[in-house]
Amino acid sequence: MVVSFANRVKLLKTAANQEILKFTQQPEVISFAVGMPAAEMFPIEELKHISNKVLEEAGNQALQYSTSEGFEPLRELVATRMNNKFKTNIRFKNIMITNGGQQALDFCAKLFINDGDTILCESPTYLAAINAFMPYCPNFVEVPTDDYGMIIEKLEEIIQITSNIKFIYIVPDFQNPTGRTWSLERRRQLMAIINKYEIHVIEDNPYGELRFEGDALPSLKSFDTKGLVIFISSFSKTFCPGLRIGWIAAEDIYFEKFVIIKQGADLHTSTINQMLIAKYMEMYDFDANLEKIINVYKRRRDVMINAIKVNFKKDIKFTYPQGGLFIWVELPYHIKAVELLERCLKDNVAFIPGDTFFPNSQVKNTLRLNFSNMSEEKIREGIWRIGKVLNEF
Amino acid sequence: MVVSFANRVKLLKTAANQEILKFTQQPEVISFAVGMPAAEMFPIEELKHISNKVLEEAGNQALQYSTSEGFEPLRELVATRMNNKFKTNIRFKNIMITNGGQQALDFCAKLFINDGDTILCESPTYLAAINAFMPYCPNFVEVPTDDYGMIIEKLEEIIQITSNIKFIYIVPDFQNPTGRTWSLERRRQLMAIINKYEIHVIEDNPYGELRFEGDALPSLKSFDTKGLVIFISSFSKTFCPGLRIGWIAAEDIYFEKFVIIKQGADLHTSTINQMLIAKYMEMYDFDANLEKIINVYKRRRDVMINAIKVNFKKDIKFTYPQGGLFIWVELPYHIKAVELLERCLKDNVAFIPGDTFFPNSQVKNTLRLNFSNMSEEKIREGIWRIGKVLNEF
Repeated sequence: MVVSFANRVKLLKTAANQEILKFTQQPEVISFAVGMPAAEMFPIEELKHISNKVLEEAGNQALQYSTSEGFEPLRELVATRMNNKFKTNIRFKNIMITNGGQQALDFCAKLFINDGDTILCESPTYLAAINAFMPYCPNFVEVPTDDYGMIIEKLEEIIQITSNIKFIYIVPDFQNPTGRTWSLERRRQLMAIINKYEIHVIEDNPYGELRFEGDALPSLKSFDTKGLVIFISSFSKTFCPGLRIGWIAAEDIYFEKFVIIKQGADLHTSTINQMLIAKYMEMYDFDANLEKIINVYKRRRDVMINAIKVNFKKDIKFTYPQGGLFIWVELPYHIKAVELLERCLKDNVAFIPGDTFFPNSQVKNTLRLNFSNMSEEKIREGIWRIGKVLNEF
Repeated sequence: MVVSFANRVKLLKTAANQEILKFTQQPEVISFAVGMPAAEMFPIEELKHISNKVLEEAGNQALQYSTSEGFEPLRELVATRMNNKFKTNIRFKNIMITNGGQQALDFCAKLFINDGDTILCESPTYLAAINAFMPYCPNFVEVPTDDYGMIIEKLEEIIQITSNIKFIYIVPDFQNPTGRTWSLERRRQLMAIINKYEIHVIEDNPYGELRFEGDALPSLKSFDTKGLVIFISSFSKTFCPGLRIGWIAAEDIYFEKFVIIKQGADLHTSTINQMLIAKYMEMYDFDANLEKIINVYKRRRDVMINAIKVNFKKDIKFTYPQGGLFIWVELPYHIKAVELLERCLKDNVAFIPGDTFFPNSQVKNTLRLNFSNMSEEKIREGIWRIGKVLNEF
């Protein structure tokens, strides 16, 4: 019997990192592969306390169905926080709670993409965004990117020759996978372009609050005068991912549609998990906890960068992120990251080859290193191991 | 500026019950509208205890990212429970955890439906399933249904004249909205038909365990020799919906695809919520709690049926469900349920007009009554009020 799936199913591929993830769950493996937060930073004692509080004060509500838009006090807290941290001017009525940022990505494609419509993205771009968009059968166009963001002249050229562009997908702060952050000038130039051509931007900003040094830059959404920017973020990196709480901030015309999409997709996000985060923000100092996370990640980045300098040859390039979770490595052209990984796995050290972060380009000599999830000691040891294998190439 | 959404967006409508829900949140309203469980039955004290346990024993894991398939011990518990209660023979490796049953519905459409493909469904069928399927632009064909399930001769006639049928969507036990249960004979006949034509069935079974009397019937999945049935259920009605935990049981060829769909859609379901249910099942007697729920709902059904007999005229038909949450009412042809609702809302009593449960048919004289969420006193009072308004028609 031949099963007739939807056409979109042909495009679905298991995310490479999900496969590597299974291997890296063995305790002897040093993994720089997955973008996991440091679990030892989770405020477990506080969560025990607030779980009791929420169940005691409003257990009936916490365990019951709730609205698709989300738990109102959390939406208010998110709006206030966004306006402070990302310099936006959003009202709580335009915040919808999602199951992490990933669900927000799915919804953006569901809202905009017909088969064959075009999505512009950074080159490279976030792997899981490609996976979220893919079931809607888009055409991806990669926009050339340097250390300061998309190269705006290239972007405009592409816009002029490309039809059915539905949105530009951008991770402006400490991008996954490169760790790069758009400069202020590029942000301004981008907004001029999208206002001129009236193209939507999906601003995916889960790492912006994880800045180790330097001044925070205003979000793209903060420059948005025409309501063209849809802003996505989550509590997965600033608090903990296991609760699956993210959000979309969008103007009314989009927001109304997102709510109906959410109704059809899963009715609403876990009531109790939304209440837990709201209660945590009410009872504890969210920023103080975030500061602790930042300090740990900053040290880990430093350790990784130093280890790279010591162990990798000079012809290997790498980014120096001012925040976030990732360093991007460019190998000499003849070294294929997939082959490097194969050899490294034998030495029990893992990373993600960069190949899958390019929806179209055949780039074989890049890789992503995550520094948030391993101890300083393991980072030193792991980078030493990779360096050793690299020297054999 | 004209925003160019995806074509599917034109098909999206706010669920009628979401609008009525807002009205019914006022405490003075007696609502038979939404299919909410009785919050007073939620095991809040137990959940406080297990939240502490889970966070104490495995907080780092509970708050961290986890796999798209779901938390393995919960998948095992679900498989065992399904095999006991629904007479299936499923392995845990074929259980994927979803955000409630609703997400499973979305995924089924995502897996099978191209624009214009056909879904067969009961007439009437579950409203939120229509909403889940709609973004994939299917063609719905309603199969005539009586008190024992779909009329099999009609089903076969439809199959013979309809192209691109991707699946038959069925709620066999205590259906939403009618409360009807398929007879054993109809189940067998259905399976013969789908085996003959090799058509998939989505068996949506969230109410099957809420049986007040009579013998449990084997699930459709239990008769499935060709792997054609995809079984969906959730803990929303047997435990509590605020955790958003449901599941899909499907054979390997479908399961693999569902996992990739889940990855793209939201990575995974809340880790901690999955662990809470697993821990509850380990530490407490799930069936004893379910028995309590069943006893309360049974009394409420009895009270509602009696009140209907006393207050509604003899030309009004209604179902007598042996379980679940709903009674279906058929008014005389000249009474429009939407108009009845309008008048009832003025008397602070609400229900859902049946119109929206028919994807195509223009049926105006039916309505759905939920009996799980109001006290016996309010059920008596509410049905009396509806009866009073009905007598004015």
